[in-house]
Amino acid sequence: MPDQFADMWRAIEPLGRASSGGYFRQPFASAERELDAWFVEQAEARGLRLESDPFGNRIAWWDSGSGPGVVTGSHLDSVLDGGAYDGPLGVVSALGALDMLRDRGVRPTRPIGVSVFVEEEGSRFGLACLGSRLATGATTWQEARGLRDRDGVRLDEAMAALGLDDENPQPWLGSEQLACFVELHVEQGRALVDRGHAIGVASRIWPHGRYRFQISGEPNHAGTTRMEDRRDPMLTYAMTALAANKQARVAGQRATFGRVDTQPNSTNSVPSVVTAWMDARCESDEALATLVETITRQAEERAERDGTRLAVTAESVSGAVDFDPELARRIAVDHEAGDWPILPTQAGHDAGILSAQGIPSAMLFVRNPTGVSHSPGEHAEMADCLAGVDALAETLERLAT
Amino acid sequence: MPDQFADMWRAIEPLGRASSGGYFRQPFASAERELDAWFVEQAEARGLRLESDPFGNRIAWWDSGSGPGVVTGSHLDSVLDGGAYDGPLGVVSALGALDMLRDRGVRPTRPIGVSVFVEEEGSRFGLACLGSRLATGATTWQEARGLRDRDGVRLDEAMAALGLDDENPQPWLGSEQLACFVELHVEQGRALVDRGHAIGVASRIWPHGRYRFQISGEPNHAGTTRMEDRRDPMLTYAMTALAANKQARVAGQRATFGRVDTQPNSTNSVPSVVTAWMDARCESDEALATLVETITRQAEERAERDGTRLAVTAESVSGAVDFDPELARRIAVDHEAGDWPILPTQAGHDAGILSAQGIPSAMLFVRNPTGVSHSPGEHAEMADCLAGVDALAETLERLAT
Repeated sequence: MPDQFADMWRAIEPLGRASSGGYFRQPFASAERELDAWFVEQAEARGLRLESDPFGNRIAWWDSGSGPGVVTGSHLDSVLDGGAYDGPLGVVSALGALDMLRDRGVRPTRPIGVSVFVEEEGSRFGLACLGSRLATGATTWQEARGLRDRDGVRLDEAMAALGLDDENPQPWLGSEQLACFVELHVEQGRALVDRGHAIGVASRIWPHGRYRFQISGEPNHAGTTRMEDRRDPMLTYAMTALAANKQARVAGQRATFGRVDTQPNSTNSVPSVVTAWMDARCESDEALATLVETITRQAEERAERDGTRLAVTAESVSGAVDFDPELARRIAVDHEAGDWPILPTQAGHDAGILSAQGIPSAMLFVRNPTGVSHSPGEHAEMADCLAGVDALAETLERLAT
Repeated sequence: MPDQFADMWRAIEPLGRASSGGYFRQPFASAERELDAWFVEQAEARGLRLESDPFGNRIAWWDSGSGPGVVTGSHLDSVLDGGAYDGPLGVVSALGALDMLRDRGVRPTRPIGVSVFVEEEGSRFGLACLGSRLATGATTWQEARGLRDRDGVRLDEAMAALGLDDENPQPWLGSEQLACFVELHVEQGRALVDRGHAIGVASRIWPHGRYRFQISGEPNHAGTTRMEDRRDPMLTYAMTALAANKQARVAGQRATFGRVDTQPNSTNSVPSVVTAWMDARCESDEALATLVETITRQAEERAERDGTRLAVTAESVSGAVDFDPELARRIAVDHEAGDWPILPTQAGHDAGILSAQGIPSAMLFVRNPTGVSHSPGEHAEMADCLAGVDALAETLERLAT
């Protein structure tokens, strides 16, 4: 088993890796398509039945037993310059766990599926968990098809270029297909390190959202325009970025400006427009609403002072997700080495979308020694990864036999 | 004459114009090359002798008289999303003034040249007045050839692609060729509006510089990383942009952050690196040094607090330029409608480079009703443009007969 896992890991390791050591695996583009082809090969090599939907999602089925299946999996896309583990660890571990059950001669009473959902990170079309949203109907095709990437390419165009050109694709994924869903994922914080455990189980996902701040000013010459005659949107943006950090810090929540677009982005010009995206996450829906309101109010006050205009658009907002507590308990207890800790996460996942759509869902976390994530420095020790495969196999056996 | 001027203006008006109404005329690229071809046609149509140097600069000579020439001209490139007047007004007016002298049967005792210098704005390779710097030797080819544009294309590669592939081009422009240089330019502030004059003459150019602030932090997940565990370079940048504005405002000088590059520029990631460019201009060299030092010190203090690393690089610094006061006086006085005002500017120009290299130089400014510049909104009234052609013809007659 360690060898099989290591072989799979080595096969995908170079795909989409940049000179930084980080990964660029944007959906419906070359590196991610190579990963998709690799997954199809893996399914075929195991004699699994491949179910492919009109949105680019995949489930490889081991048609054992009957009734709705137990599905496990994750995603193969990455953020820009992301890590190796976020997503792929869940897919490789799912294949490894399935191999382990077969090697042991386990006879499931339900079908077991290994899934890959597309565009989990939202790094190309801006809407995270796009694949699971479309498959479950959490987001409709009419809402999503017009989303554009940074080059102006529409989602439906990008998909049609790959042969995904169904004119009116329908959601199809629900409790009739899935008895439950389990996603294994590298932890994105240091809670497991702090508690001294290799494996944990998710209790809930914090509510979170993405907000676009578009600030318009007056383009002008950077040398000849007196400071007092300017309407400089960069100043409004700068104060907003500092305010977001401060408000989140004081409240024990999270707010980040990680993406900025400046027009015309010229050294000797006062910008005309600065557009920036805020990622905000809070422990409750109320706290999120309050945080965003507070930051927006401070930005508006500064815009007033700067003579600029501010428009704030919520591009996506996901409420809190409480995973099925009974399912989490069933997974976490009665292990040789004691119970696995149950803990919340601030990161969104396809498991959260499925849970919110009524499919009993759970997540396993694998210890991350530094907590670093969405970064080339993201890491998990091989021993912990293999413990994850064991844990997932044990979980599948509990749920599917 | 008004018709000839309007015809030339109409011919170049659509070249490089974007839907914003602004211009994208970056050097050694299509729109700017069309303007260059237009200039060559204009020279040929007038029977002028075209002198082309290995850097892409042009002088169209009216070989009248003898000895070093009187040259007038400007540039045809623009900032990103710039205005129609900055540069082209000086070239079109120079051709118009030459036509006017010929129509009047003026017999110059010196050759008169109309010049176009490349990459005046530095919008592609980052070094303003590149063409005049290379022609005069103010910057050497060894220093400049490795400059890269935003796509990583080197200056020598971009030039070679257009046939400018001299291995070891030499500076060639000095007092032996030019008795004096006069650049006509749209004003980039409102001093002429305030004084009620259509035409002014430059006294000096403020010292100015471009400084690259590279701030490195630690890339991480925007949701799961606690605020207190971050090393977020965006915060250091934001405070620096606000500090630059405040320090310049308090001191009556100029400082602008108009260009920012964020890596990986992903909504759900704490950035790894934020690189931003500061344009700073002051009334004296000492004031510029003090301003940059003060802003850099504040940025360093904030970097210390944020746990980020800051590197500041002066990409170009130009000292104050005092234009030849005797030449300015000779141009400005004894007109029918009284003397033209003599006033300083905060903008760099090729005339400043030539002046610093020992060529007596002068500038004529044409009134700008709003002062807006480096912006699609940049404007000059047609009557003032025609007054500029008259003024330039009168100036050439004074200097070349």
